[in-house]
This record gives sequence, C-alpha cells and structure tokens, in this order.
Amino acid sequence: MADKPVAAGQSSRRGAGSPQNAASKPAEAEPAATATAAAPGTRRPGGRTARTRAAVRDAVLSGLADHGYPGLTVEYVADHSGVHKTTLYRRWGGLEGMVADALDMAGEDTWTPPDTGSLEGDLRELAREVVDSFSDEATAAAPTAFIAAAFQSERAAEALHAFYAERFSRCEAVVARAVERGEAAPDVDSAALVRAVSAPLFLRVFITREPIDTALADQSAAAAVAALRAGAFTRR
Amino acid sequence: MADKPVAAGQSSRRGAGSPQNAASKPAEAEPAATATAAAPGTRRPGGRTARTRAAVRDAVLSGLADHGYPGLTVEYVADHSGVHKTTLYRRWGGLEGMVADALDMAGEDTWTPPDTGSLEGDLRELAREVVDSFSDEATAAAPTAFIAAAFQSERAAEALHAFYAERFSRCEAVVARAVERGEAAPDVDSAALVRAVSAPLFLRVFITREPIDTALADQSAAAAVAALRAGAFTRR
Repeated sequence: MADKPVAAGQSSRRGAGSPQNAASKPAEAEPAATATAAAPGTRRPGGRTARTRAAVRDAVLSGLADHGYPGLTVEYVADHSGVHKTTLYRRWGGLEGMVADALDMAGEDTWTPPDTGSLEGDLRELAREVVDSFSDEATAAAPTAFIAAAFQSERAAEALHAFYAERFSRCEAVVARAVERGEAAPDVDSAALVRAVSAPLFLRVFITREPIDTALADQSAAAAVAALRAGAFTRR
Repeated sequence: MADKPVAAGQSSRRGAGSPQNAASKPAEAEPAATATAAAPGTRRPGGRTARTRAAVRDAVLSGLADHGYPGLTVEYVADHSGVHKTTLYRRWGGLEGMVADALDMAGEDTWTPPDTGSLEGDLRELAREVVDSFSDEATAAAPTAFIAAAFQSERAAEALHAFYAERFSRCEAVVARAVERGEAAPDVDSAALVRAVSAPLFLRVFITREPIDTALADQSAAAAVAALRAGAFTRR
C-alpha cells in the first residue's frame, strides 16, 4: 500500500477555515500568538520552552506531511526537532499529545476574516481563501494531515474540533458586521451560515474528492447569502 | 497512540450519500447489484466468485471498522474471509485493491432517493438519511473507514470519488423531478444543489467534529431550496 504523496512545504498563504496558518509559518507567528492568545488558566511558555515547542510542532507537521499519522514516530520527531525522546515523552506524553499541541499552536495565529464592506463580499473572500489554501499542495499539506490524523486519534479529533470551532467563531465576525449594517437580522444563526459557505468546498476536497475553484467558492457564498435573505438561517 | 474506537456492525439502515448501504448488508444486496449494475466493459463474476468477493469485502469492512486502514493487513482479511492469501494477492493485488473493490461493491446497491412529491421534502429526507446513518455507530463505521482510508491510499481515494460521484448522481433524480414539476428551472446546477444539502453535515462529522441532528438536516435542505429559488444554483 502506497502512501498518498503529499508535499511538505512552507507558505505564507493564509486560508480561512484551515489550520495551516500558524502551522505553516511557525517562526513568525509564534511571538504574536504568545502575546495575544493566552486564555485564563492557560500557561504560555516563553523563551527556550517556546522554541522547543515550535521545533516539535515543525517536526510533527513535516512528519505528518511526509508520512501521515500512521507513519509518524517519536523517533522521527526527535530526529527532526533535536529534542530528546525522553523529553518528548515527558512533556507531550506521546505522539497524540504532540499532534494535538501542534494543532493548538495552529490556532494561535492572528488571522482575522476579510472585511470588504458587504456580507457577500466577505463570505466570498472566506470561501476563496479555502479554495486557495487547498489548491496549493504546500498549504494543503498540514490541514490535510490534521484532518486525517483525527480519524486515528481521539486527541487529534478533539484538537481538530477545538481548532475549527475557534476558527469559525472568528469567521462569525463578518456576520456580526452584517447585522450592524442591517444586512442580517440579529437572530441570524451565524455559526451555521459561515459553516454553510465552507462546507461544499470541504465536502469536495475530503469526501467526494472532486476539484474546487473560485467559481464554486462564489456560488457557495451566493447560495448562503440567498438562503439567509430567505430566512433559512434564522436561529432555531 | 490509541486507535479511535469504531464499532463494527451490520445494519439495514439506508443512508444517502454514505457508502454503508450495500457495504453493511452484503448478502441481500449482492444479487440485485449483480443483476442491475453491470456497466459496459465490467465483468460481474457470479456464483462462487461472487461469494468470494463478498467474503473479502465483509472482511475488509470489519477490519477497517476494527483497526482502520493503517491497521488492516492481508493476514486479517485472509483469516476473516477464509480466502487464501495467495488468492487475495493474485486477484486483488493487495490491500488497496481489496479496499477499492469493497467500495465498488458498496456502490452496487439499488438505493434510490426519496420521492415525497416536493423538492424540499426530498432534500430534507436525503439530509435526514445522512444524519441517521452517521448518528448510528454501526452504519457510520464503514463509510467512516472508507473516508479515512482515502487519506492513506490513492486507490481508495479514487474509489471513494467514484462512489460519491455515482451516489450524488442518483440523488440528482430529485432535482430532475422538480424540474418536471416546474419547481426548478432546466438550467439548475443539480450536482451543486444536492452536494450543498449534504455538505454541512459531512463538514461537521469529519472536519469540525461537531454533532448533527434532524434540525440541522432540515435547515440545510431549506437553505438549499431558498438559494435555488434565488437563482444561486443556476448552471454556470
């Protein structure tokens, strides 16, 4: 059985709804994340600890991209991060902990959704960012590996859930602005709306394995806005 | 790293848009499939050959459900199908071929989409079937295993693509009937429409890892119909 080839790569492309942001640009994203993302009760290690964590995350990402979760080993992460296996086991417990932490870090970026001045414009840009990130093998590698890992690891599944819950809640800012502008009623189900825009793209990438393009992104945004106007996304 | 627990089970529940139909009810579905699904150039073995194929498919399904693709071995399939390893290698080439063939067989059922008399009724039923099939661990196991396998095997990915392309093309019958009734214009993008209904459900099950329910299915169907009426699914 051959592994599906997935190129490991680094890119500065930022895509909404996919976890490659901080993940694909570790070094730059780290300081901002450490400064801004600390939640109550969350300890954010700095300095040498932060560098170790980033090195492990980078090794996990390159391992997932090269071999997938089934082929990822603690030996690989130790070799590629320069962190001793004993330390890896002590601090992360094992591979699942390393993958989950890498996903946590992917969510610690400063990405914000587009602000074009109209709801359809914002949703269209969001959808196009998803298309861009999954059309490029380099930016697609990390989110694809995380989504695949979630099938094999409960902890990865939980981390993936947390990542997307937080990412989509950021996307809801575009709906909040639409409500302020009078483009949407205050009782809009913004969580469902932003998910409806991305869903047809994710379906084609990971389930039906069909191509996606900008026209599909635009269709998806237009459909969501039309459904909103018809009252289909009123909060239940 | 612990395998995510997935229960292997058999069920007669039929879900649109997920490959557990024939997959989860092998014995009954086989004769119908053999009689109706033969495409030009496709050889459909009968009798002992068909029984061997079904036994291998059942073993692949239970192996995928119990261990996932990474843990599936030719030994497991041989032990659980009663088919000798030499025969498995000769006829299927290896695990990838067995998984792809199991998916091919899942597509050989006689499932047809609901016919409630209205487009929204049909789409709502389709969406509810997806919710039902993924809410039940027994019916969810096979499609989940196939979708996961596609991340690790190019042949499984191709077979998954073929399965869903064919399954969604069956779903398009509900749109064709809507056109006949004057509920939709002839230039409707029926492929996009039927995918839009299922997409928010698949997104939550496999990407954001969030719960789905009947209310979400109904919202998704209503949104798709509203978008259709507003012209968002006119063929481009």
